[in-house]
Amino acid sequence: MIDPYLKSLLNIEFPIIQAPMAGGITTTELVLAVSQQGGLGSIGAGYMTATALEKQINEIQMNMKSSFNVNLFVPQPFTEEEDISLSKEYLEEMRKQLKMPKQFSVELPTFKKVKENYDKQLDVVIENKVPVVSFTFGLPSEDVMAKLCEAGITTMATATTVEEAVAIEKLGIDIVIAQGSEAGGHRGNFLQDTDHSLIGLMSLIPQVVDAVKIPVIAAGGIMDRRGIEAARALGASAVQLGTAFLTTVESGAHKMYKQAVLEAEETDTVLTKSFSGKNARGLRNEFINQLEDINDRLPAYPIQNTLTHALRKHAQERNDIRFMSLWSGQSPRLARSHTVASLMKQLIDK
Amino acid sequence: MIDPYLKSLLNIEFPIIQAPMAGGITTTELVLAVSQQGGLGSIGAGYMTATALEKQINEIQMNMKSSFNVNLFVPQPFTEEEDISLSKEYLEEMRKQLKMPKQFSVELPTFKKVKENYDKQLDVVIENKVPVVSFTFGLPSEDVMAKLCEAGITTMATATTVEEAVAIEKLGIDIVIAQGSEAGGHRGNFLQDTDHSLIGLMSLIPQVVDAVKIPVIAAGGIMDRRGIEAARALGASAVQLGTAFLTTVESGAHKMYKQAVLEAEETDTVLTKSFSGKNARGLRNEFINQLEDINDRLPAYPIQNTLTHALRKHAQERNDIRFMSLWSGQSPRLARSHTVASLMKQLIDK
Repeated sequence: MIDPYLKSLLNIEFPIIQAPMAGGITTTELVLAVSQQGGLGSIGAGYMTATALEKQINEIQMNMKSSFNVNLFVPQPFTEEEDISLSKEYLEEMRKQLKMPKQFSVELPTFKKVKENYDKQLDVVIENKVPVVSFTFGLPSEDVMAKLCEAGITTMATATTVEEAVAIEKLGIDIVIAQGSEAGGHRGNFLQDTDHSLIGLMSLIPQVVDAVKIPVIAAGGIMDRRGIEAARALGASAVQLGTAFLTTVESGAHKMYKQAVLEAEETDTVLTKSFSGKNARGLRNEFINQLEDINDRLPAYPIQNTLTHALRKHAQERNDIRFMSLWSGQSPRLARSHTVASLMKQLIDK
Repeated sequence: MIDPYLKSLLNIEFPIIQAPMAGGITTTELVLAVSQQGGLGSIGAGYMTATALEKQINEIQMNMKSSFNVNLFVPQPFTEEEDISLSKEYLEEMRKQLKMPKQFSVELPTFKKVKENYDKQLDVVIENKVPVVSFTFGLPSEDVMAKLCEAGITTMATATTVEEAVAIEKLGIDIVIAQGSEAGGHRGNFLQDTDHSLIGLMSLIPQVVDAVKIPVIAAGGIMDRRGIEAARALGASAVQLGTAFLTTVESGAHKMYKQAVLEAEETDTVLTKSFSGKNARGLRNEFINQLEDINDRLPAYPIQNTLTHALRKHAQERNDIRFMSLWSGQSPRLARSHTVASLMKQLIDK
């Protein structure tokens, strides 16, 4: 079932990785359930403080000895003095529609602060001997790689093109996660722009497999055994599933968000920068529609992400999916409401 | 190897269809070679006159008794009085760059003429008892379906979404070709716009398979045995390959075009309306770049196709790939220069 080399790297029984969905979805309950079933549970730590991350790692480690993964966003330099007036104007209009009280001024992130948090997150994963660490949005430095290697931590990173996969292998990362255009949530491209890096898995996997020697994990649109077998036929050693785990009972996704995915069709997703300033695939809603005209004029990540935070939170608290981010891959028709145990059984059973 | 029901419909030995690439690529030599090797050769008849189509059908039938397919473009109504001045202005600029003599005025197509040619093409395929007819860009009328059924002709049609696949099945078409976002050449969407119908095969196939009872053929990015096995794992009964056959010796693609595909990477393709007025995936070049700014303001298909014809032909005759249409799927790294026999052997061999 699982390639012995991959098994030795990840210390899991089945070649199934639960995607590290950031923003409260990857609860301790979810990570535990996946890892205890023999897959690899993942914490989507991108938006977490180092303190919150350490707390969750400790909770997980107290409850099991199985392997798990922590995913970090590699900070990329961004313009701190970006013009945010246009975005604010549109968001102010939404605020009124939502009858939301006026916000106090938002503290915008600086690169220094983002980098500091990332460095602390790294300290936490190393100090707590997290078994696997994965990276998105870019590559860790050689210094970081050396520290992770010394700590005996297995590393993974997301690629959307052959060139990115080759860069990941060259840096000494153990495993490459090949993210197809089908994938929900943020695009992981870091060397090519989004337009040039939306490659379907049917094309991406064999071309990446031919170009690197490290194991390749397929991510994007995979929901059931059919997808797992297809990914393996293409040469992938394992699969990473996001949307399939999103709708499980254990996932921390908002109940209205889960329901929206369960009712969605394959044509309902769209790539948008509206929520965070970085392209991500999600179900089209009012929020996306209202910012669509200025999608390419929005402040970059993480500025836009910070600007939209209060509005998204307000909508969540009021069960209003019109203004929540509803990340989903292109296979929502295959999503089911069930437990992780039930999903894992379906994924594994021959 | 092949599902008995599909075998009875298509009368082929292996579940491999050579995509009907229009514009001179699907030579008699190519169609014969594919069908004689046990696959399904296809004539891309979209741009052909009924007379030229009949000539090629007769050539093929004189040389073999095996099954083959003719693909027709279903005419869609278009605005005949569209403003073509902007497109002409840009094309005139290209004409100068190419040092091409000034054209005499171009006769623009009318819907009546396009429809007349399609009706004659239909008469030809029926009179000549072509074994399989496939449709792209839309659905045939119920009258046409009745005639094809009476003639005992197997029918296929392209879908890019579940809704399109369901409409195809409902009309009584025998087989649906599910075109993933990876596919090269023209998009076959006819119910949804391009933005909503770019679904990767990993997502598209299982969702289509779950929604229809007729056999599903997977198209897009499939180049080798890995792709065939993946498509079948997802539930497809067969595969349709375009780019893989494009670079064979028997294909009529321009030698410089073949070479461009053989040297291309997965990130080199782009969706463009520049050549025909309809979205298609091809290798980025000067032609696409120069019309990129007005891509969404170009006249619709087939007007733009007619406007660009002379320029593309001129470039072809001068081996100038900067101004030729270079359709390719997202897996050009897997393209090889060899004979159809060699390709088929690789596709079939376990």
